[in-house]
Amino acid sequence: MSLRDIINNALSRWMNGKGPEGDIVLSSRVRLARNLEGTPFPHRMQEEDGNKVLAGVRLAVEKMNNEKKWPKLEFTRLDELSPNEREILVEKHLISPQHATKSRFGAVVLSDDETISIMVNEEDHLRLQVLLPGLKVTEAWELANKLDDGLEQTLDIAYDEKRGYLTACPTNVGTGLRASVMMHLPGLVLTKQIGGLVNAIGQFGLTVRGLYGEGTEAAGNIFQISNQITLGRSEEEIINNLLAVVKQIIQQERQARERLRQEWGEQLSDKIWRSYGILRYAQMITSQEAINLLSNVRLGVDLGLLQGVESTVLNELMVLMRPAYLQKLAGKELSPMERDVRRAKLIRERLKLCEVKD
Amino acid sequence: MSLRDIINNALSRWMNGKGPEGDIVLSSRVRLARNLEGTPFPHRMQEEDGNKVLAGVRLAVEKMNNEKKWPKLEFTRLDELSPNEREILVEKHLISPQHATKSRFGAVVLSDDETISIMVNEEDHLRLQVLLPGLKVTEAWELANKLDDGLEQTLDIAYDEKRGYLTACPTNVGTGLRASVMMHLPGLVLTKQIGGLVNAIGQFGLTVRGLYGEGTEAAGNIFQISNQITLGRSEEEIINNLLAVVKQIIQQERQARERLRQEWGEQLSDKIWRSYGILRYAQMITSQEAINLLSNVRLGVDLGLLQGVESTVLNELMVLMRPAYLQKLAGKELSPMERDVRRAKLIRERLKLCEVKD
Repeated sequence: MSLRDIINNALSRWMNGKGPEGDIVLSSRVRLARNLEGTPFPHRMQEEDGNKVLAGVRLAVEKMNNEKKWPKLEFTRLDELSPNEREILVEKHLISPQHATKSRFGAVVLSDDETISIMVNEEDHLRLQVLLPGLKVTEAWELANKLDDGLEQTLDIAYDEKRGYLTACPTNVGTGLRASVMMHLPGLVLTKQIGGLVNAIGQFGLTVRGLYGEGTEAAGNIFQISNQITLGRSEEEIINNLLAVVKQIIQQERQARERLRQEWGEQLSDKIWRSYGILRYAQMITSQEAINLLSNVRLGVDLGLLQGVESTVLNELMVLMRPAYLQKLAGKELSPMERDVRRAKLIRERLKLCEVKD
Repeated sequence: MSLRDIINNALSRWMNGKGPEGDIVLSSRVRLARNLEGTPFPHRMQEEDGNKVLAGVRLAVEKMNNEKKWPKLEFTRLDELSPNEREILVEKHLISPQHATKSRFGAVVLSDDETISIMVNEEDHLRLQVLLPGLKVTEAWELANKLDDGLEQTLDIAYDEKRGYLTACPTNVGTGLRASVMMHLPGLVLTKQIGGLVNAIGQFGLTVRGLYGEGTEAAGNIFQISNQITLGRSEEEIINNLLAVVKQIIQQERQARERLRQEWGEQLSDKIWRSYGILRYAQMITSQEAINLLSNVRLGVDLGLLQGVESTVLNELMVLMRPAYLQKLAGKELSPMERDVRRAKLIRERLKLCEVKD
């Protein structure tokens, strides 16, 4: 599948599957920051340096494709894409918002199934990402590690015996590893335990964010848990520490959902079904409202209180209803109100395809 | 009993029809206050007086039934009914809340189709009521007048050449006539013109109330317009004055709805369809919220923005969802929360029978 297809197909292929603990863990991600030896970091790069990085990565990708050890990788310069196409890659979590709008000499390498993406010349020369459905942090790390080895066959990666991998920002020095897990935690939010969790998590060297990266509110009760510390620990330690905490949170979320079911009774059903009713018939809706209602519906599906809506529909809709994808569907720029109208229509039509039992 | 049967029984037969201007005028009512000559008013009545009134009315009704000029009338003493059965009569607007709970020697005379009801020993010895669908004030007055004549064949009605009909409360003296029209005015409410209307209407000797009589808020944008003055004008003048003002209001409401349609566009559709979505799927709902949402849906039906819901369904539901009827359906007393759950279920199931096109 070409990049064009990836943009056209709203859904990353991995979204159709449900991974381990998929009722709570939406996805697992591992990202490695790497830089080329002897080349200035991107923010200090001259044109000649930028082109050198691009050429090097392109060559490395070609070689890796010849080996056929991975899904086919495709290299694309960002300036070949329209701003809206770049924005779609952001909405799919394949590149960062910064990379979409501010990178010089930027490129992206993507695998067919979108589990692998490499940002070129973002904050670092290379940001390797592996994204898998459900709780698969270890698998994601293993694949990222192999990918890293593959690139090193061609590229000379900056590494210091004492400090480890060198990165543009000191917070990434060492392993250059950021592992994260996207979790749907409506139970902990509704039972008001989430505040305590967010506070406690720092003690484990982890951090919590909302759905679309730093500074975003936790729309739709979706939280991203990731390691904060990259230095002084091995990759395995980082991964295992994250996994241990995430498993704890899963357990707490399960207990919270059970408590909700027992203590809220009809009120919980009411909240869930009203959310469904509004999504099913609203004629205009903001993405903020939609994501919160979708979160409620998803909880209902997970608890068996609302049957007939596949849980993957909700993952789909969360991507489909974002502004850039709506504009792509419309084939033109849309005002916020026009987007709200089209978003509502898209959600209505998608939910209409489900056979809901009420 | 099927839901269909339950609904059929719950509804006054007149509700199934839609009268003139039925998109705005739900019903027209005429009420005549009458008292028997030489008998103390109900609040000063001894047992002997009360029984005399009951016996007299029972006799008059028998004679009238023999004449076969009207729908068959049935006489029932209120103490033969359970409190909940009396409450259902209140919810159907056939007797007043005061009559249901506080009357001594109370009775009610009802016609099969519930267009005619006579409260016996409420505030006055007799309160004749005719209730018709749509804008039919003149017809209601004519029927009430004939009914009055019919009763006078048997009963000696207190009448003073100068003051007209004598009544317990001086505000009814004269014609003893109260004519009222129940109007659905969402357009005037949403365009914020209703305040001006309520203020202006007093100048015409008319008054405005909410759905369930004095002191009630205008739930569901439903307003009752009635004459305030009963003395010094003929019955025809009172009826024609009310009719003229109501026709004005109908015109204003039509204009307001047209303005809404043009200026609100998608926002109006959104409001209407969200209301439908919540009613269609909520698992618990208060009568206040339900009536407001039903008002929105009704507006959508009237404007053709929501097709497949019969407008009579909404009249039906407004009666079906009231507390006493819900308790009758359940066959037991219900807590407010239990009522909210059963109300939501009833509304869901009724709306499920409609073939809504979306």
